[in-house]
Amino acid sequence: MSKPSITPRTLKGFRDYLPTEMAPRRDMIAQIEATFRRHGFAPLDTPALEYAEILTGKYGEEGDKLLYRFRDNGDRDVALRYDLTVPLARLMAQHGGTLPSPFRRYHVGTVWRADKPQRGRFREFVQCDADLCGHNSAIADAEILTVGLEVLAALGVRDACIHVNHRYVLTGLIEAAGVPEDAAGSVIRAVDKLDKIGPDGVADEIVRVAGVDAETARRVLDVFAEATDLDALDAILERAGASGDKRANSVGRLRDVFALVEAAGHGAMVRFDASIARGLDYYTGIIYETRLTDPKVAGVGAVMSGGRYDHLIGTFGKTEVPAVGISLGLDRLLAALRELGLAADGRLGADVFVAMFGKDDGADAMAAAAELRAAGISTELATELGKLGKQFKAADRRGCRAAVVVAPGERARGEIVVKSLQSGEQRAVARTALVEAVRDALATSA
Amino acid sequence: MSKPSITPRTLKGFRDYLPTEMAPRRDMIAQIEATFRRHGFAPLDTPALEYAEILTGKYGEEGDKLLYRFRDNGDRDVALRYDLTVPLARLMAQHGGTLPSPFRRYHVGTVWRADKPQRGRFREFVQCDADLCGHNSAIADAEILTVGLEVLAALGVRDACIHVNHRYVLTGLIEAAGVPEDAAGSVIRAVDKLDKIGPDGVADEIVRVAGVDAETARRVLDVFAEATDLDALDAILERAGASGDKRANSVGRLRDVFALVEAAGHGAMVRFDASIARGLDYYTGIIYETRLTDPKVAGVGAVMSGGRYDHLIGTFGKTEVPAVGISLGLDRLLAALRELGLAADGRLGADVFVAMFGKDDGADAMAAAAELRAAGISTELATELGKLGKQFKAADRRGCRAAVVVAPGERARGEIVVKSLQSGEQRAVARTALVEAVRDALATSA
Repeated sequence: MSKPSITPRTLKGFRDYLPTEMAPRRDMIAQIEATFRRHGFAPLDTPALEYAEILTGKYGEEGDKLLYRFRDNGDRDVALRYDLTVPLARLMAQHGGTLPSPFRRYHVGTVWRADKPQRGRFREFVQCDADLCGHNSAIADAEILTVGLEVLAALGVRDACIHVNHRYVLTGLIEAAGVPEDAAGSVIRAVDKLDKIGPDGVADEIVRVAGVDAETARRVLDVFAEATDLDALDAILERAGASGDKRANSVGRLRDVFALVEAAGHGAMVRFDASIARGLDYYTGIIYETRLTDPKVAGVGAVMSGGRYDHLIGTFGKTEVPAVGISLGLDRLLAALRELGLAADGRLGADVFVAMFGKDDGADAMAAAAELRAAGISTELATELGKLGKQFKAADRRGCRAAVVVAPGERARGEIVVKSLQSGEQRAVARTALVEAVRDALATSA
Repeated sequence: MSKPSITPRTLKGFRDYLPTEMAPRRDMIAQIEATFRRHGFAPLDTPALEYAEILTGKYGEEGDKLLYRFRDNGDRDVALRYDLTVPLARLMAQHGGTLPSPFRRYHVGTVWRADKPQRGRFREFVQCDADLCGHNSAIADAEILTVGLEVLAALGVRDACIHVNHRYVLTGLIEAAGVPEDAAGSVIRAVDKLDKIGPDGVADEIVRVAGVDAETARRVLDVFAEATDLDALDAILERAGASGDKRANSVGRLRDVFALVEAAGHGAMVRFDASIARGLDYYTGIIYETRLTDPKVAGVGAVMSGGRYDHLIGTFGKTEVPAVGISLGLDRLLAALRELGLAADGRLGADVFVAMFGKDDGADAMAAAAELRAAGISTELATELGKLGKQFKAADRRGCRAAVVVAPGERARGEIVVKSLQSGEQRAVARTALVEAVRDALATSA
């Protein structure tokens, strides 16, 4: 072609997944999906593109700016999905009548955010979500935390902890510190950074961004430092004059949820953390973030988050439907697992490589490959002639473990050559014993 | 919330996949991926968004117009991927040096085309592609056709046929009919519609669009009607003065490919069809489309297509890399399978529903659910209290087959209730025998 060559490149914040990374990623997704299904969650898919009005106003001002939003060929105002939760809420309002209540769904899907790319953070990434719509109860909350913890267990992640909080705890504590109502949002966002910028940084930010005096800022930090467990929390809220109902719905709910997660055998992997805030606007109850506790990946951030959002579905229709969900960031977790040496590299080759001596051996080689594949053995067929030694070496390098060679001499005797690529050992076997001989060769080189 | 309610709706040509459709779709993808892997293809993923210049000029003028193309927040000219082949070509030029040659990859991914939506055709759909890059040989072509046929077999599709042609056969036949070179493209696009608009329609279009006289148009139809098999084809090309080399590279190649597919046991599901043209600009050798032969779904169009594209990768760099691939349109095929009654509806519920008598039974119910899940049994836990009879009925409706009830009386006796939802039969069993009793209940209601 005479056209000028186009530089092959990907957009900043986007990336290719080559097979060495993609194979373990596929395996992770399979494990995650199996766990979701074992917990009664059914799969779902929604479009990548939505009317922009469906998505805007749900993620806070900052989130709206990060939308990939544009006019399509029909001049519609559209945007790529920013998470899987708002599309689910839209779907529940649209199709909820035809679905059972409660409705448990999972969704593995790509989302897009025009965020500043940084280590482990991309503009395109896969989320794995489980949500339970229709019930607002401690058991519903606990079911969601449990499925999240089971997903981590299925992936072999042991050094992790879900930090759990409640939206009312946040507002209650801030009220108790004497922060004016209109500054509450900014103060919460500052407190959310406690583990990143420390108490002094948070105090500075409260004064600077929320416009609150230094003494109140200090009181906020004191109150949060005091709320180390649910008893201390309850005492603070009681002292600040919170009603019994309000405390039952927040502190009491957290107590019930922790007891249920304990009953499911996961008590050691959840803890109350008053500083968890979650940036998204739509949460109304329990909220949580999962941190990896291995210091080697401490900087990786939250790998699995979520919360209760009882009013989001109602924004798309007349009916309020309570809901709670959890979202695992697949690519961020995979990056961390790779750093921890917990994710194996994918293999490029099949188990078996079928080679041939000359062009006339093609049909027989194809038949041999077909037979191995029908027996469930992953097999590649040589697609060009070439020096066998060189071909074997290349097949070994890409992870093939056995080779089969079709050649005229053996064929005339009703035989075929089977070779172990690790040991180099090879033997001619009866053509009818091909599958068995290959299974033997694979078994001895596993 | 006091904001006005937003109408929940999806964009035209986009759709939600509810669990009844999504579950069989996931199963299909799993079957397809397993087949690709069995044939030595490794998984890969590329971004949904690419620089627009990567995608434009590859799909013909019509294709360029169907791109979802926009300026991103950084004012970059970007577009959603239109297929999985051009992104693969970009990736091969970018990363090819680190990959083995030949490189076999598969890719299951969503693509977007701003096409006119119609029955079975959407603006967003999933393609399942297998490609072999690095070799130009009959075996490479046959490997790709074979994996496509094995995918259909794995999905239970028997009434299908791959119609195979070659780019040079098309141009050779059109040359043989005396069509001027500059009109060849339009004539090929007209011939491609033979099975849709018939010979008269094609003749009309050749005259109208390609500006060729009626007599030549008629000759084109005659030549294509005569080329019913490879011998007839070869005779036409020889008569028209095509060189031996050219004929070997097209007719000869097709002969070799058919013999190899025959050797793989799939001879009955491929046939030569001179009218197959494929709209995309990048094909250079063998091309094919798969038609479902059951008359009930004859109108559904090609469900699996592809061809050889030896110059596409070279447009992104200095190195030409020959390649051949096949692409299955998952959603179109699923729609057809549903019409044929070959796709089962997905179930909404888990196998087992765990209910509880009162609030105090929550922790025990959670523990019972955890035990069943750990045993690999898909289980949902009741997330609200309610009348048990009503809960069982709803669980039965969504496809649960057994129920477990945690109640104070049985608990005091160290027992738990297991119920078959089909027969309504229930019994109290020792709490320690829960998993076994549930397995029994599931086995008798399978």
